[in-house]
This record gives sequence, structure tokens and C-alpha cells, in this order.
Amino acid sequence: MSEDNSGSGYVTGGEYNRDSNYITDRITADGSSGWPVEAGRYRLVAARACPWANRSIIVRRLLGLEKVLSMGLTGPTHDERSWTFDLDPGGRDPVLGYERLQEAFLARFPDYDRGITVPAIVDVPTKAVVTNDFAQITLDFSTEWTAFHRDGAPDLYPERLRAEMDEVMQRIYTEVNNGVYRCGFAGSQEAYDAAYERLFTALDRLEERLTAQRYLMGGSITEADVRLFTTLARFDAVYHGHFKCNRQKLTEFPALWAYARDLFQTPGFGDTIDFPQIKEHYYVVHADINPTQIIPMGPDTSVWLTPHGRESLGGRPFGDGTPPGPVVEGEEVPADHGPGGIGHR
Amino acid sequence: MSEDNSGSGYVTGGEYNRDSNYITDRITADGSSGWPVEAGRYRLVAARACPWANRSIIVRRLLGLEKVLSMGLTGPTHDERSWTFDLDPGGRDPVLGYERLQEAFLARFPDYDRGITVPAIVDVPTKAVVTNDFAQITLDFSTEWTAFHRDGAPDLYPERLRAEMDEVMQRIYTEVNNGVYRCGFAGSQEAYDAAYERLFTALDRLEERLTAQRYLMGGSITEADVRLFTTLARFDAVYHGHFKCNRQKLTEFPALWAYARDLFQTPGFGDTIDFPQIKEHYYVVHADINPTQIIPMGPDTSVWLTPHGRESLGGRPFGDGTPPGPVVEGEEVPADHGPGGIGHR
Repeated sequence: MSEDNSGSGYVTGGEYNRDSNYITDRITADGSSGWPVEAGRYRLVAARACPWANRSIIVRRLLGLEKVLSMGLTGPTHDERSWTFDLDPGGRDPVLGYERLQEAFLARFPDYDRGITVPAIVDVPTKAVVTNDFAQITLDFSTEWTAFHRDGAPDLYPERLRAEMDEVMQRIYTEVNNGVYRCGFAGSQEAYDAAYERLFTALDRLEERLTAQRYLMGGSITEADVRLFTTLARFDAVYHGHFKCNRQKLTEFPALWAYARDLFQTPGFGDTIDFPQIKEHYYVVHADINPTQIIPMGPDTSVWLTPHGRESLGGRPFGDGTPPGPVVEGEEVPADHGPGGIGHR
Repeated sequence: MSEDNSGSGYVTGGEYNRDSNYITDRITADGSSGWPVEAGRYRLVAARACPWANRSIIVRRLLGLEKVLSMGLTGPTHDERSWTFDLDPGGRDPVLGYERLQEAFLARFPDYDRGITVPAIVDVPTKAVVTNDFAQITLDFSTEWTAFHRDGAPDLYPERLRAEMDEVMQRIYTEVNNGVYRCGFAGSQEAYDAAYERLFTALDRLEERLTAQRYLMGGSITEADVRLFTTLARFDAVYHGHFKCNRQKLTEFPALWAYARDLFQTPGFGDTIDFPQIKEHYYVVHADINPTQIIPMGPDTSVWLTPHGRESLGGRPFGDGTPPGPVVEGEEVPADHGPGGIGHR
């Protein structure tokens, strides 16, 4: 998703509201949507910096969809118009040939004037965006792309839990994932104060929930954990200072911090996190709240690798499944961009 | 001191440099400077928000000079021209009759065009500033105002320690007191990066020094502790986020944090700290780095009152002297502005 005010949200009465107009087409197993699940046909475009795109990177990897759904990665910053493929040789996505993600949106709708957001799934033959509906994309990975799941893929959206999960995930979205943006983009002191109280009330509740159980829905990882994780991974590095979410650091929530490290150290989570890109994205793109665009050096991210002790809560992280294997070649986060790397910003 | 770039510093080659042009007259015991120490003649003008002025508030109180040297307090914010007496009834200092501290500078030099800074000492009969040389003011309280020290006043600048103290205090000034500003006002990524490394190198050394000894110069409080304290008191509330001094919070330095709380809980230190004014000052005045001027609600300041355990290091905080008595009437920090107060911002 684009995180600038202009592209994907607006401030009214001081309060930040996220634009929720997406291209909501779905790619389905039976093809009834017009977009059938098909190996090699689509390309996921994501940005490591973006929490909403980070979800899709994690779920794709947990389910083992790398070979059937390729991935293009944009750089961490973007201008008002588009995310760009500035990390690729020649500044062009090697499959789509585009310099800017915007081109894929215009290929679909020539007069497209809403946010150019990641994650987006592009139909490679027509080079047109199929969907940028971030909330549906990962659920469809779990439920529509089953024919291509790897052996041992976990069930991230179990049928018996869906009713409760939908509620939990909705609350995580409004109160936490979007809650940090509500603090950072508040247009008035009053709106900020209210957003801060609301965010930390939610985090206090999650702290309590996660004190006695290993994951949000019990003993195994689900989509709900993916969604909470992507915000927690950015909390101390960005939201605490840049968005003024500073009642305390994540490291000062005992259960949440141990939970976050447990996930981080699980294959498929921490190996998708690029701290320097995350920091660069927020501190450079949001010149309206950080006019110098200077990127803080702190905090030290090596603490993400410290023991978390959550094994004592039991559970089976992947349920009846198994962890994913190593990151596929070409998709590794540079060694010095991870926690403890010398390039920790 | 004024903390805006315009008033008291400038950026050159990306690096922030503090303007050090002050009115350097001194008030002396023998009157040879033209300004003799005299009870009731002068007025200290300070701002609780400002770390440089905070020094003078602390030392005046530790030495018991309240009855002979009155104090006027400006509000936490100021415009480009001056600190103002907006906390006083009618917006005027009750003794000087001024709305703006600038008037006292102009009474001394009609064409004064340098920074209007606190602390400043004003000659009440002529209503003109005598000095705003913050570094000298507190030393002169200790060495020139001795005739008026309270019974049991500590020796904050002991002769036998002066040579070493001058070095320690110089390093604290360049590396820490001013070091946080060098981070916050850096005009380029390179200047910021260098400032950050320099600041945390200094804090690491202080952490080491204060692990084995209770105060900077040994077992008793000196002026050096006052000078370090005023920066530490603002570290997590302001410098960590606003100035991007975010390798870690003060609370994450075991010795420095215990040392800071030890001082905070000592009469004369914590009772001068007004956290809401401190936060309002930085976040509102520096619109160049915080354009929304929104003031963060965190962090929780009640942690300043937790046990510090430093008594086990021994020492006598006031040497052969005694702690100061209660804060004099009319100079109390509002109850809800201190740590744990409901108005924690």
C-alpha cells in the first residue's frame, strides 16, 4: 500500500482515514472471476518496506508459492505517483519491463487515478493489474491457490477458526495496523491523543492475550499472526519515533516482544524483513512529518535475534505442516540489512 | 538558551554549531565587575523547559539563594524573537513588568541582535540584562554568592576538583548537552550519522564511569552532575524521538538510568522538572523538524520514581552539607506536571 497521505488516505476533522478503494478482482481456483489460478501467469509486486505488502511476501513463502507466482520488488521510496523498480538493473522490472508500478495500473484502467499501491498482482500476458486488494490477496493465497501449495504448507486460515479470526483480524487492522498510521498522520493534537489511547489500549489487550498463549489463535501460526507481525516488526524502528507511538517500545511489552521475536526467528517471517528499507521508506517518503528526510541510525536491531522463551508455551508453529525451506535464490534480504547486520539502517 | 536554529546556532556543511556569543558580565562578591552580589537586586529569568536554564534553577535551589535572588519563569514556547512571560497573570513578569524577555536585552543594548536566551540575570533597578552566560552563571552562584548560601549548602565546585571537573564538564557540554542538538539539528544524513556516533560513544563512557561510582566526581553531587542531569531528564521525553537519538532510551542504560533517577529523587533536581513544559517547548518551537507541532503523549514518566538502588554505592550526596528544604512557595511545579501526574504531557 502507498503510505503517503495523498495516495491512500485523507485527513478529515484532524483524523486520518485510510482510502479503501482497491481493485477488488480475485484470482480464483475455479476461474469464475475471470482470473483463474494458474502457474506462471501472474506476478506479485511488493515492496519490502511496506507492511501491507510484507504480508503477501510472508504468506507466499509460508505456502511455497514462489515457483508458480513470481515476485517483483520495488524500492523503498516512491514519489506521489508511484512505487518504482529502482532496485532492478536498468530500473525496470525484468518481467514486466516497467519502470513504475503505475504503468501496470494504467494498462488496466487508462484513467486510473487512485492510489498506486503494493501489494499488487499483475497478469503477465497483459501486464495489467488484476488486484491490489491487500486484505484479500493473502486469504486467496490460502484458499484459492491450494493446488500449488508446497508439501507441508500450514493452514493459515482454518475453516473452524474463520469466524473468530475475521473478528480478530478486523480489530488488528483498525486498531493496530492502521492505528499506528492514525497516530502518525493525525492532523490535530486532539486526533493524535485519541489515536494514541486507542492504539495502546489495543496493544495492552494483545499483550494480555499473548501472555498465556503462543499465537493469536492458539498453538499454531495463522494469517492473524502474519498481520500483527508486520506492524510489530516496524514498531521500534519507525512507529515509536516517526509516528509518535511512544508510550513504550515494543521491547517494553514482555509478551508482545517475545511473541514478535518468536515469529521473527521462524522461517518465513524475519527473513522477509529489511530494516534499512523499512526505515528509508517512512523517513524519506513522509517529508511532511520528517522534512529533513534524515533516517535515524537506531535502534539496534540485533535484539530481534535474542532468545524468546516462547517454546515453553507449547504449540506447533506449523500445525500438521512444516516450516518452509530456505529463501529461494534471488529473494534473499541482503545479509547486512537484517538484524545485527552492519548496515542496520 | 534559545534552541531554535536562528537564535542560537547555525548549520554549516550540514553540521549544527551552537552560537556562543553571550553577554559575559559577571556578578561578583567584590563588585570589581561593576555588578556586586547583592540581596534582592537581581532577578533570574529562566524557563523550566530549557536544559541550560534548568541548571540555574537547580543550583539556585541547592544553594538556597531563593530569598536573595528572585526568579521569573517564561512559558515553554517562544517565537523567533523572544521567550515570553505568558505564564504570568496578564502575560507580564510581575517584577520587571515585561511581556518579553527581549525587552530586558534591549534595555541593556538597544541594538541587541543576538539570541534572546535563558537563563538570564536581570538587574532589577535598571531592568537590563547583566548576563546570559549560562555556563558561568551557576559557577558564580557557587563561588561568588557564598555570603548568601543557606546553612548546609553543598560545595558544588570544590577547589580540589576544579581542574578535573572543568575537563569533565567541557566534555559533557560538547558531547552530551550539545551532542543531542547536533543530532537533532543536523542538516545532512552524514552530519547526523557522525553526531549520533559521537553522542553514544560519550554516553557509553559515562555509563562505564557511573557503574562503579555514585556521582560523576565521586561520592558527592557537584555541578558536573547538575549539567549531565538536565540532558538526561529530557532524553526519553524529547531527544530520543524528536532529535533521533534513538540507539536506545535512557531507561536502557542500566547505570545512567539509575544515576538519573537517584538525582531526580534528590531534593533540588526532580522537583524542578516539568515534563509537559519540556515536551511542549521542543515539539512546538521546532516546527522545522516537527511541522505538525503535535506533542507526543509518551513516554510514561512515572518510572522516574522507581527505586534506583544507588545507595549501595555509598557516598554522601551533599558532602558535609544537607539537602535543601521544600520548594519555596510559588515555585512548585504543578502536581500533575511531574512524573506520574495525570498531565504527563
